[in-house]
Amino acid sequence: MKTGFAAVLTSFFLTFLTLGQPQAGDRPLMGFDKLRSVEERTIEARFDSLLRRDDLRSWMKRLAARPHNVGSPYGKQNAEFIASQFRLWGFDTKIEDFHVLFPTPKTRLLEMTVPEKFTAKLQEPGIPEDSTSNQQNEQLPSYNAYSIDGDVTGELVYVNYGVPKDYEELEAHGIDVKGKIVIARYGGSWRGIKPKVAAEHGGIGCIIYSDPRDDGYFEGDVYPKGAYRNENGTQRGSVADMPQYSGDPLTPFIGATKDAKRLPIKEAPTLTKIPVLPISYGDALPLLKALGGPVVPDDWRGALPITYHFGPGPTQVHLKVEFSWDIVPAYDVIATLKGSDRPDEWIIRGNHHDAWVNGASDPISGQVAMMEEVRGIGELVKSGWNPKRTIVYCAWDGEEPGLLGSTEWVETHADALKQKAVVYINSDSNGRGFLFLGGSHTLEKFVNEAARDVLDPQTKVNVLERARASRIVNSQGDDRKEARDRSDLRIGALGSGSDYTPFLQHLGISSLNIGFGGENGGGSYHSIYDSYDHYIRFDDPTFEYGIALAQTGGRMVLRLANADVLPFEFTSFSETVGKYAKEVAKLADDMRDQTEELGKELREKSLKLSSDPKETYIEPKQKDQVPYINFAPLQNSLAILQQSAKNFDQAMKDVRDESATLPASAQKSLDEMLMTSERFLTREEGLPRRPWFTHQIYAPGYYTGYGVKTLPAIREALEQRNWKEAEEQVEIVAKVIEKFAGAIDKATRLVNEAKEKIAGKN
Amino acid sequence: MKTGFAAVLTSFFLTFLTLGQPQAGDRPLMGFDKLRSVEERTIEARFDSLLRRDDLRSWMKRLAARPHNVGSPYGKQNAEFIASQFRLWGFDTKIEDFHVLFPTPKTRLLEMTVPEKFTAKLQEPGIPEDSTSNQQNEQLPSYNAYSIDGDVTGELVYVNYGVPKDYEELEAHGIDVKGKIVIARYGGSWRGIKPKVAAEHGGIGCIIYSDPRDDGYFEGDVYPKGAYRNENGTQRGSVADMPQYSGDPLTPFIGATKDAKRLPIKEAPTLTKIPVLPISYGDALPLLKALGGPVVPDDWRGALPITYHFGPGPTQVHLKVEFSWDIVPAYDVIATLKGSDRPDEWIIRGNHHDAWVNGASDPISGQVAMMEEVRGIGELVKSGWNPKRTIVYCAWDGEEPGLLGSTEWVETHADALKQKAVVYINSDSNGRGFLFLGGSHTLEKFVNEAARDVLDPQTKVNVLERARASRIVNSQGDDRKEARDRSDLRIGALGSGSDYTPFLQHLGISSLNIGFGGENGGGSYHSIYDSYDHYIRFDDPTFEYGIALAQTGGRMVLRLANADVLPFEFTSFSETVGKYAKEVAKLADDMRDQTEELGKELREKSLKLSSDPKETYIEPKQKDQVPYINFAPLQNSLAILQQSAKNFDQAMKDVRDESATLPASAQKSLDEMLMTSERFLTREEGLPRRPWFTHQIYAPGYYTGYGVKTLPAIREALEQRNWKEAEEQVEIVAKVIEKFAGAIDKATRLVNEAKEKIAGKN
Repeated sequence: MKTGFAAVLTSFFLTFLTLGQPQAGDRPLMGFDKLRSVEERTIEARFDSLLRRDDLRSWMKRLAARPHNVGSPYGKQNAEFIASQFRLWGFDTKIEDFHVLFPTPKTRLLEMTVPEKFTAKLQEPGIPEDSTSNQQNEQLPSYNAYSIDGDVTGELVYVNYGVPKDYEELEAHGIDVKGKIVIARYGGSWRGIKPKVAAEHGGIGCIIYSDPRDDGYFEGDVYPKGAYRNENGTQRGSVADMPQYSGDPLTPFIGATKDAKRLPIKEAPTLTKIPVLPISYGDALPLLKALGGPVVPDDWRGALPITYHFGPGPTQVHLKVEFSWDIVPAYDVIATLKGSDRPDEWIIRGNHHDAWVNGASDPISGQVAMMEEVRGIGELVKSGWNPKRTIVYCAWDGEEPGLLGSTEWVETHADALKQKAVVYINSDSNGRGFLFLGGSHTLEKFVNEAARDVLDPQTKVNVLERARASRIVNSQGDDRKEARDRSDLRIGALGSGSDYTPFLQHLGISSLNIGFGGENGGGSYHSIYDSYDHYIRFDDPTFEYGIALAQTGGRMVLRLANADVLPFEFTSFSETVGKYAKEVAKLADDMRDQTEELGKELREKSLKLSSDPKETYIEPKQKDQVPYINFAPLQNSLAILQQSAKNFDQAMKDVRDESATLPASAQKSLDEMLMTSERFLTREEGLPRRPWFTHQIYAPGYYTGYGVKTLPAIREALEQRNWKEAEEQVEIVAKVIEKFAGAIDKATRLVNEAKEKIAGKN
Repeated sequence: MKTGFAAVLTSFFLTFLTLGQPQAGDRPLMGFDKLRSVEERTIEARFDSLLRRDDLRSWMKRLAARPHNVGSPYGKQNAEFIASQFRLWGFDTKIEDFHVLFPTPKTRLLEMTVPEKFTAKLQEPGIPEDSTSNQQNEQLPSYNAYSIDGDVTGELVYVNYGVPKDYEELEAHGIDVKGKIVIARYGGSWRGIKPKVAAEHGGIGCIIYSDPRDDGYFEGDVYPKGAYRNENGTQRGSVADMPQYSGDPLTPFIGATKDAKRLPIKEAPTLTKIPVLPISYGDALPLLKALGGPVVPDDWRGALPITYHFGPGPTQVHLKVEFSWDIVPAYDVIATLKGSDRPDEWIIRGNHHDAWVNGASDPISGQVAMMEEVRGIGELVKSGWNPKRTIVYCAWDGEEPGLLGSTEWVETHADALKQKAVVYINSDSNGRGFLFLGGSHTLEKFVNEAARDVLDPQTKVNVLERARASRIVNSQGDDRKEARDRSDLRIGALGSGSDYTPFLQHLGISSLNIGFGGENGGGSYHSIYDSYDHYIRFDDPTFEYGIALAQTGGRMVLRLANADVLPFEFTSFSETVGKYAKEVAKLADDMRDQTEELGKELREKSLKLSSDPKETYIEPKQKDQVPYINFAPLQNSLAILQQSAKNFDQAMKDVRDESATLPASAQKSLDEMLMTSERFLTREEGLPRRPWFTHQIYAPGYYTGYGVKTLPAIREALEQRNWKEAEEQVEIVAKVIEKFAGAIDKATRLVNEAKEKIAGKN
């Protein structure tokens, strides 16, 4: 029987043999048997050979030739150009348009009235070394999208990054921002957090500036001598309250189609509560220099040649911003290549095409790499190859103001996507350096395997090993040990900041975010200097890393599209979530220790006694005790998940050991279970107070914005000291994990039944 | 018998009852019985009541009225004034003069020749807000004493703090300073280390500047608006190789008396090997701004508004310095009050009087507090009180160039001091803030007890508790736990930087260094702006902390002078040295781990792979393996020491429990043993390669200068990877500790024998 079983299941033979193997080579790929792996690798080699750096260069030159923000004429032309190319390459391509709220400035005024008169320039001048920098007529001025209109005057207070803990520091110094205008430096959070927290504390206006410590000469020579932000460079960007929901502020949950029911602008919850304006460090310097009040703590100090003070005052500023609150069209380019065998399984790959200004790096560097993938795949198709599953390439519009194009498309096609989407693979800016991998941990083994087959253009080791080297060198202790010894490099969890958010966190579609960087330092981000000229000097002059991205992204798409069984795997996921569970338990313990320590310090008066009596120091209030939270339900659910993951592995291993192949029908059924598995990690009700975010493992933090909060419902309840909610959410999340384990068990049963059926036949 | 024993030993009754007690009050003092404690506290209360802030103010005004460096006319006048006061207050006072090498500049030239012409101003201008800042005729220009003459031209290289690990970073970037001029920022080490290490690496000149990150506007508003160093402020200071020996470079080991045999200047080993000049950040800015080469690492970057580069070049500089190599007189003021009972036991207290310029803070703030102690004690004497032991107050000259006055006096009187010195108590600059305590751990309990009896002027808790509060708040983990729970606040070990060095580290006299500070922030150090005007605005405007210093220092002097038995104790010392032993063992383990880690990184190529191929990166060489060092002799000696300390405690406790008093002769014999105990911690041969430093527990680091290296012979052998020497030194230090334990045992036997004798009589 054993031999017979083996004989029948041949094609599934070595499908999972690479599990846990650190080295690539000719070992079978996940989801493929040995023969099919050879075939797949042959296709990939051909795909690699088709990729041409000159394509990337010429497309970047074209797409970044003029400003192309959402709603702009050149943005539309770009969408049409991309679509025409996709069509040329044999993809069934359409442009889907949405109609999104996109405010642009009518008035921008920032002046210091006291102690001296100064009017901020709010201008990035064109420079001869940058040929597109003088396109003033088409450039969006520097501003923050989704700031409300406002005209405010008040004393200025410096609030560091403007995140909640900065306000604790202000409080300790007896400084209240109520009725004041705050000035925050960029960094430390998603920029939309800064006005949100300022408003929560009574601030009436918010200025955000790029400090040269974080984004300027402290980091490196400034443009045009070097790559870094100069004194005029200004970071545009959205300040919507994205942790509530991404996409058009007027159409949460639904697609912003022409006739969609829209919220009145006044009721849109993600607009800021106070007016906001971004400025350069050149404009910030006089304001900060004139500030009085106590000197700020060490880690609040930037790199301007001044002593940084809190204020408030004597600096008084007048901030006035007014916007045209227009509904503009957003053009998503959607290119489909229908799968031959399983057309209702969609492998989706996307990168946005809109920019704040010319956007050579953000997003064109990623966009042109993705276009080259499409061209490469088109060439394969022309030579007779066809994918088993459907491939969908998307060039998103309106990412910059708030993931508009992707979110509205996802909301519009939510039902279809929930049924058919297998994976969403995102990229964005790309440059010279190291591969970064983030996403669903059910795909961790898969992406490690793919990355092992791509060579780093500079060092000629594979891009996974180069990323591993960097992780080893830049970590310590247990993290270093893991980076060195774990066969797979652990991938990061996704917060927000690019177009994967609606897929992963709204719908629960397994997602990945990929790209190269780390050696493309610079400060052109969201400025007019993010140009072709800047890119080819400082980012990826040879476009080798554009090709590496196309190889990585294309390889993932090809493997996912062609595999006999989808290459999902659950032990990495269960191990990683186990880590998160330990983290939240430790968070509660640490908070308990900190609360007790604070109590001691208040009782013994050490905080007061160690402060300078000549300066204002307000002791923090005693915090409520941290109860012991019952984490047992979570831990039990993880024990179940671990067993389920192990059983699935074992079932697959049995198949493999028997050199068996699952019948096509079983493969298809298994696919359906695997591709929808991530959906079990969501809850219809979403997270507490933010129902749009349904994923229970990954979410952008409510007070971080970009930064991920894993097990967000539990973690944020703890952080907000809402013990009751934390305990409730432990139970809720535990049930979610149990359901997810149940879905895995179903897949395991399917494999085992198929196996028995085959065995029975023999 | 028990009762009889108790009856006889009454006066010794409660002598040691306060051991381990955290709270002051009316508990008996160490070294005193209950009745004598009450008496002592009465004297101290009277002493406190005599102290007058106005004295400090008027003396500071007088002593800082004109520049008074060693060899200056006003310096001599100050010495004579101080001596006249000491005499007035009833002390037998003399001025002892020494004749010391003190170079002053004839030529100072620093110019940039490439890429543009710039000549450094090298001037601190007078300012109207500072009434003594315009005394140009008497001010020493900004320079570094004991730089050799030199005239060098070369490319500039920025070397961060210029300590050994900075040169490892330079090497990693392929940058060699051979034939170059280095520019280092102040900080990170004693300034004399910078030219020493530069010369070791082939540098031909050394510029030292004050970066505003460490000493300027980054820290706070600059003078005269605030207390911090402005763009012209320049830090003078010695650059002698003090870790070889302190004092006159021409007379190591011997007093620089008129006829002393002197080394030829050319052979003086502590002079620099290359010319050195300190500059302001105003002068440094153009040089650093013009530097090219790679951008330096984050932690090398200062607060100038530039991108910091390594060089070398294109900046080329021409540095020329020439000095008058004069022998000048140094005037030590020595004031003695003979002990009534044990005149050959000397309690020595000192603070220097010379400054770089006007020196209101450094050293006059400490000097005037000490003078007030002398006046207070003089008043006590006038009212009929007399100390049991001899009190010696010293106002040192020539501290600034290299602890000249104190070192030469100590070397001159070495034999007498070895026999008679009980303790040396040092102070120097003083200001508002927290008490700091450093010194011999055999005095840890004693100084804790004294500090508990002095009130902090601002918070009205005792100065020990305020220092403890600061330590609790500013430490973490085990250190915080210790700061909170240990009954005594652990005192710091002494490195170098003030006049305790010749006493403690050359002769092995138990020493202390005391002062207040931490709320007297500012950057007047060693500049013309260290003035009365600066001091009364920013340092200790009310002179309350000057009084607190007088109370602390005076209290220690009075208690040491009056105690029945000297308040030495050995369990704190043995515990602390046990900590040091653990540290050196851990150092070896850490070095072994680091060496292994480096080997891994070299084998796996992670360092190379994680570096940017577009930038030069030279992998470090594999280091030799770290063998397992035999620390057993050290550990065994510490076990012996621990037992000896315990036995001494027990003997003292028995006396106390029996309410006994040792007879006067036994007290005196015990005193003699206790006061010479520290001498057992020295070795005639000194430390390897620096025989002048004889103390085996505490020494300034060979590559840190100020920073202490505890168990220096072992620790530095390890740091230099000299495993053989480390193992040898473990044995040597172990023997030293055993001898020290033997000395304690002798004291214990003496106590026990005295006890038995008394018991026998009953």
